[in-house]
Amino acid sequence: MNIFIIGVGLIGGSMALDIQGKYPEAKIFGIDSNKEHLNEALELGIIHQKATFEELGKASLVIVSIPVDVQINVIPKVLNLISDDALVMDVGSTKSQICEGVKDHPKRRNFLATHPIAGTEFSGPSAAIKGLFEGKTNIICEVEKTAFKLQEKALEILTNIGMRIRYMDPKSHDKHIAYMSHLSHISSFMLGKTVIEKEKNERDIFDMAGSGFESTVRLAKSSPEMWTPIFEQNKENVIETLEEYINNLEEFKTLMQQDNFSEIYQKMKSTNYIKQILNGIK
Amino acid sequence: MNIFIIGVGLIGGSMALDIQGKYPEAKIFGIDSNKEHLNEALELGIIHQKATFEELGKASLVIVSIPVDVQINVIPKVLNLISDDALVMDVGSTKSQICEGVKDHPKRRNFLATHPIAGTEFSGPSAAIKGLFEGKTNIICEVEKTAFKLQEKALEILTNIGMRIRYMDPKSHDKHIAYMSHLSHISSFMLGKTVIEKEKNERDIFDMAGSGFESTVRLAKSSPEMWTPIFEQNKENVIETLEEYINNLEEFKTLMQQDNFSEIYQKMKSTNYIKQILNGIK
Repeated sequence: MNIFIIGVGLIGGSMALDIQGKYPEAKIFGIDSNKEHLNEALELGIIHQKATFEELGKASLVIVSIPVDVQINVIPKVLNLISDDALVMDVGSTKSQICEGVKDHPKRRNFLATHPIAGTEFSGPSAAIKGLFEGKTNIICEVEKTAFKLQEKALEILTNIGMRIRYMDPKSHDKHIAYMSHLSHISSFMLGKTVIEKEKNERDIFDMAGSGFESTVRLAKSSPEMWTPIFEQNKENVIETLEEYINNLEEFKTLMQQDNFSEIYQKMKSTNYIKQILNGIK
Repeated sequence: MNIFIIGVGLIGGSMALDIQGKYPEAKIFGIDSNKEHLNEALELGIIHQKATFEELGKASLVIVSIPVDVQINVIPKVLNLISDDALVMDVGSTKSQICEGVKDHPKRRNFLATHPIAGTEFSGPSAAIKGLFEGKTNIICEVEKTAFKLQEKALEILTNIGMRIRYMDPKSHDKHIAYMSHLSHISSFMLGKTVIEKEKNERDIFDMAGSGFESTVRLAKSSPEMWTPIFEQNKENVIETLEEYINNLEEFKTLMQQDNFSEIYQKMKSTNYIKQILNGIK
């Protein structure tokens, strides 16, 4: 099995490692516009061989894990180059534009739109980790548009690396993921920004950072290269979540100004419900 | 050494466990207005004996770990009851009002205002954990107002349980902790609220929660009983941080509406600096 990873960073690299673990016979080829990353991936044993687009004809599986604006152009190009029985999967955090972009491609049935809900705040090949996908959810969109045999192939690999599968249409995916992921990133980036602006001249103050601050601000370490195009592609949904979030913060501020702390207590108490929700999904 | 813990929850209970580890000869007495918690603390071995305020005369150390609005009344009462060479420490997340409240107390020199920057999102005796304070920072305010021998005693215990000490005046503490801790809690609570409101009828959607969402929303599990009075006591500072945070979020939203994604990229890129800051304090 020849597997091509286009974009050998956190997600692509971790996929390569997990697939190696389950399919020792698989040969992993790497393609990346960043030559240093590609060499690093080879040194780290993430890929077995560096490759180019010209070699894609021999791929049985291609995983495209590059920024979502770039993949819009790259995936049709990849589909043009692969053989008739190869599978191409993307792993992007937005799904509508990519599904729209390939909908009339003659090889549409060779493509599967996926979103593995997994990752860390780090990026590049050195951020790749074994077991990243174990027990995590993978959202598959428009599964019916992929050839049945290739669906089966994808499912086998994804469940072998430990993922559970959920199916969703691209519009619903993008709407809900704005709440469940994209908003968290903005809230974290802007929290980091607020604190850095205030405290930048008082480095000692960061001694006061506890695990709570670190946890809330963790996502502000994420890659802007990856996240800017995600926000751009999911602009409408993200703006809606931001408006609701800002309204809730404004309301909290107003209650504080009015010394209405019993209402503040109630709001926090009912939000504690998140505990049950998150326990429920474990 | 007779040690009294008033409030046998997350912080008081963890202090008791760590002190037991380092001072096996210490006898730990527990006082709590919640009788169930007190029994639980006894069963869990957090305290050796239940006690009452009337017994405080035999204490050599009293740790007051109760909500910050309650401690304002309790600490003067405790100071009235202790012997002349006993030390009373609080562990509250705000420091101005408590220092103000005891400033004219005849036993002011028996009191030390501390804020151990440690905790989890859980509460009650069952949340107490051994080693919680290892490697964490403890902010001590107005150290000069505490008797020298009692300062020494506190330092010995706190460094023995693994804490590093920082000194700060109460006003600076409250101003900076609003950025480094209180704002994180509000951002997390309001994130949880925004998502619950939107998705409450679609429990399946929480399958989409990844580690990023969990990390950002973790503090929304915190105790409203503990946090409401903290926000009330630190009202002015917290409102200021909230205003700056909301402004940053508004600016982000406006840039999105204007399709100015290069500026959004720049803002995230410069916030990545939080990585170095947080690494710097490790």
